[in-house]
Amino acid sequence: MNHSDLDRLRHSCAHLLAAAVMEIWPDTKRTIGPAIDNGFYFDFEFSRPITDADLEKIEQKMRQLAKGWREFKKYTLSAAEAKKQCPDNPYKHELIDAVAKKNTPITFYKSGDYWDLCEGGHVDHPDKQLIHFKLLSIAGAYWRGSEKNPMLTRIYGTIFPTKAELDRYLTQLEEAKKRDHRKIGKDLDLFVFSDLVGKGLPMLTGKGATIRRVLERFVVDEELKRGYEHVVTPPLAKVDLYRTSGHYPYYKETMYPTMQIDEEELILRPMTCPHHFMLYKAHPHSYRELPVRYAEISPQFRYEKSGELSGLIRVRMFMLADAHIVCTKDQVKEEIVKVLELIDFVNRALGLKKGVDYRYRLSLGDRHDQHKYYKDDRAWDEAESVLRRVLQDTKADFYEAKNEAAFYGPKIDVQMKNVNGKEETAFTVQYDFVMPKRFQMRFTNASGQEEEPVVIHRASLGCFERTMAFLLEHYAGALPLWLSPIQVAVLPISDQQRQYATRIDHALKLAGIRSQLNQENETIGKKIRAATLQKIPYMIIIGNREQQETDQQSNDPKKMIITARTREGKDMGKTSLYQFINLLQKQIEKYL
Amino acid sequence: MNHSDLDRLRHSCAHLLAAAVMEIWPDTKRTIGPAIDNGFYFDFEFSRPITDADLEKIEQKMRQLAKGWREFKKYTLSAAEAKKQCPDNPYKHELIDAVAKKNTPITFYKSGDYWDLCEGGHVDHPDKQLIHFKLLSIAGAYWRGSEKNPMLTRIYGTIFPTKAELDRYLTQLEEAKKRDHRKIGKDLDLFVFSDLVGKGLPMLTGKGATIRRVLERFVVDEELKRGYEHVVTPPLAKVDLYRTSGHYPYYKETMYPTMQIDEEELILRPMTCPHHFMLYKAHPHSYRELPVRYAEISPQFRYEKSGELSGLIRVRMFMLADAHIVCTKDQVKEEIVKVLELIDFVNRALGLKKGVDYRYRLSLGDRHDQHKYYKDDRAWDEAESVLRRVLQDTKADFYEAKNEAAFYGPKIDVQMKNVNGKEETAFTVQYDFVMPKRFQMRFTNASGQEEEPVVIHRASLGCFERTMAFLLEHYAGALPLWLSPIQVAVLPISDQQRQYATRIDHALKLAGIRSQLNQENETIGKKIRAATLQKIPYMIIIGNREQQETDQQSNDPKKMIITARTREGKDMGKTSLYQFINLLQKQIEKYL
Repeated sequence: MNHSDLDRLRHSCAHLLAAAVMEIWPDTKRTIGPAIDNGFYFDFEFSRPITDADLEKIEQKMRQLAKGWREFKKYTLSAAEAKKQCPDNPYKHELIDAVAKKNTPITFYKSGDYWDLCEGGHVDHPDKQLIHFKLLSIAGAYWRGSEKNPMLTRIYGTIFPTKAELDRYLTQLEEAKKRDHRKIGKDLDLFVFSDLVGKGLPMLTGKGATIRRVLERFVVDEELKRGYEHVVTPPLAKVDLYRTSGHYPYYKETMYPTMQIDEEELILRPMTCPHHFMLYKAHPHSYRELPVRYAEISPQFRYEKSGELSGLIRVRMFMLADAHIVCTKDQVKEEIVKVLELIDFVNRALGLKKGVDYRYRLSLGDRHDQHKYYKDDRAWDEAESVLRRVLQDTKADFYEAKNEAAFYGPKIDVQMKNVNGKEETAFTVQYDFVMPKRFQMRFTNASGQEEEPVVIHRASLGCFERTMAFLLEHYAGALPLWLSPIQVAVLPISDQQRQYATRIDHALKLAGIRSQLNQENETIGKKIRAATLQKIPYMIIIGNREQQETDQQSNDPKKMIITARTREGKDMGKTSLYQFINLLQKQIEKYL
Repeated sequence: MNHSDLDRLRHSCAHLLAAAVMEIWPDTKRTIGPAIDNGFYFDFEFSRPITDADLEKIEQKMRQLAKGWREFKKYTLSAAEAKKQCPDNPYKHELIDAVAKKNTPITFYKSGDYWDLCEGGHVDHPDKQLIHFKLLSIAGAYWRGSEKNPMLTRIYGTIFPTKAELDRYLTQLEEAKKRDHRKIGKDLDLFVFSDLVGKGLPMLTGKGATIRRVLERFVVDEELKRGYEHVVTPPLAKVDLYRTSGHYPYYKETMYPTMQIDEEELILRPMTCPHHFMLYKAHPHSYRELPVRYAEISPQFRYEKSGELSGLIRVRMFMLADAHIVCTKDQVKEEIVKVLELIDFVNRALGLKKGVDYRYRLSLGDRHDQHKYYKDDRAWDEAESVLRRVLQDTKADFYEAKNEAAFYGPKIDVQMKNVNGKEETAFTVQYDFVMPKRFQMRFTNASGQEEEPVVIHRASLGCFERTMAFLLEHYAGALPLWLSPIQVAVLPISDQQRQYATRIDHALKLAGIRSQLNQENETIGKKIRAATLQKIPYMIIIGNREQQETDQQSNDPKKMIITARTREGKDMGKTSLYQFINLLQKQIEKYL
């Protein structure tokens, strides 16, 4: 069955959905019901709100009606006749007027007792084909997608040719739901939103902030080792800065509103580069100082439409592990090789495999599109060939994509596969020959002359919020030990072991392990279950046996006996606290 | 000589300054010249700009004129007559009109050939008393201090009764100038400003950001150890959040303008507390969870007038080591004791001595001032007595100040002495019984009932920018080893030692020491001088001797021989790199 057949099946099922709804609530105003990726939907104006509980009722009615649907029969009507068929439905009238305007015939399709305005595209035997379907969810949707129009109720559903395919899809959906970082974030208490704070502005709890701090220190320390200077610049600037960079007209729509302070017009920044350029320009530079590598854990602000905000993935403020390398043309290739090495190192530490979880995309410009891309054919040729050569020389897994470059040059995109198997650009390495001109950046070359450097824009870990969301989904919340906000749960079996458990908790913390002592008045079973649900990698269970075998006078971890287990339920047996700490520290060192 | 006599001396000298200026540039429009703390000034509208170089010329003219000034003779004039004396001077006319309006006599004072509109207050024998003076600087100043008026030129000067007093003051000024963090920041390349970025928005260079990072990690790690949760909340929120807290009407003038995004009115935050309260309110709380201690390295924004901006001390955006402790009334005392312990620990690590560099101030409310303070006499009594008891019980060095509390409760201020000996509030510990009410914060007490907690607001290290400025001035740039952005300069005597020097630089970095290799083609003398000027605590000097005594095959620091010296010029002699690293690590551990 090819894609188009699947679309027919799905669109036919949308008719069936509308028919069922109209049978149950005849005063409903139906609008449109297309096939979409993975299913279909239909938008209605209900006279009373419906809930998820109603979906089953609708489904039953659909199954009942489908039995009588032998075919979709086509009728061609005049606009006036067509409107008569749906007298109180302004949405349909609007659609009919639109079709009439185009001078195309107005067609209705009838199946069973239901008929509807429709351009066609149905299955031949609905009674035999509309079988393996399922209604999935309810959402709000503006009529024709515009916020100025009334909000309708959208019912999503799906249908497949076979039961096996439907079941597989539903299982996959269940799995994705379980892995949804918004659910995990709530279950593990990692971040919250507040109506009084504002939309798209997550607040990280102590645990969520721990993940971010560990990631941040990891990337800062690694970048310092690799010769970056980590700087700190303010997250706002005069609008003039973005007029100079040329960003303002392009990005205005996605920037925050300006703020007038005295004679200055300030704006929250949508990117870090111009600030770093001003740092570069604060002093003259000699070729001997290049490359200069400015890095920053940089707060950035973007206006995202409220309908597009989603957990930590689409937010209105985020922190980017950003950097700008200012270098000579001769240094570009080596610098990009080093950037790709850093990206591979970071991804490996996060447990992501090159070729499996991510690959590179070489995004090229279009010499004929002077509107989208800065005009300088020679510079484009040169830049694109440098990037291509780097990818070839390092034997990177990459493909090329036309017309995906930035306006100031070509780039290498790191394409990451998410839990749904969809590939998305996680972050990019950009070759920029335009900004150095716009900001009149210079260095003195070996012959004592002024020369223009090249800028490489790059992110090493991407945006922290998105990376956290990605990792939470990738690991279904069970983060690797080194990233887990709580690494060990210390669980005394009863109140009698409280004192010993406290000593163990202290010894772990002293060793730099993030441990948590459970002092609740619960059974050990419940404590283990809670720690497992919280995805805490290790649990130490303290009973009388462990306590008795331990030298009660000593705080030496070598003399403290414990029993441990993993969140996967693996019993690690009895061991000294010293050995246990050692094991964990070695794993943490290896980013496990 | 009492203060008033000193004022007369200084104001008289201001007349002399104006007289000299009018002699040299007769078309100048003079305005006013009062005595101020430590000296005097006079504001002029010059027809051509003057520079520091002109000050000496003016001084000479002053000395010459002073000889002929036997007295200040008083004249009373009508407004019309007075205006005739300064026909082309709109400033004086404005002043004359103002005096006339008050119906007070218009007085002029004449000394030598100079006379000026003046209310009086002069010395009796100017020729014998106007001797030990000095002009200090030139600055811009708006007429009558309003930005809407023309910008005038202000000349600052000072005068003392004796040469010894003048000399002592000038030496003190020189010292303060050398210690000015703005000068040090420039000399050591720690931060820069940019016209395109905006006023009061410093950018930290790699070196400046290193100081901040070290301070930040130090305080975060210490707070985590002491049971704080470090959270991350966005630096902006809906204005409604500050309406709920009651801050908006009070703080509006010092907040940034609002930004309208869709239906939300957002504003950059001037404080962190409401965000932390929203985190608290995201879940219900039991008494067993209290105290909850939210800490954050929190970006905050305040609108400071451009005239008041100064280096890192007065900025428009800063990072505060902020925290809010939510606890029961019974826990307040213990929590405040712990906060004071933390503050003492942090200050000790920064090398600041209690009783010498800082002391505590108990800032109290006023039961009769319902406008400034929230009305709840019992709560005020209780809160003030808790804070007083803590200070008494811990035998803290403190004094009490009336009418210095926050509107929501009394506080303990940490009063820090700056290089000029002036005491300023570095940060505060506040007892808040108002916000929990406004935000309807609750916890379930041991009897299962809902109860209102108390909030303690506190800063542990204050605002990073200010603290950095303070430390730079306190240490005249020579920061302790643990805070120095570069800890060791590796200085090869010639190109022959370059390879060995590189190995030493690597070994130091591997050991976590921030080292810098000087590869310039300079004499060792110049290299030592540069490192000393950069206030780098230690220098390793590598000559042929050191190289020859070293096992060239080994990268083991025990087998690498070096010669080291301190920035104070102390020769540390020959040692192994291992011993040297050991020494430094021990110092760093002790915050030296």
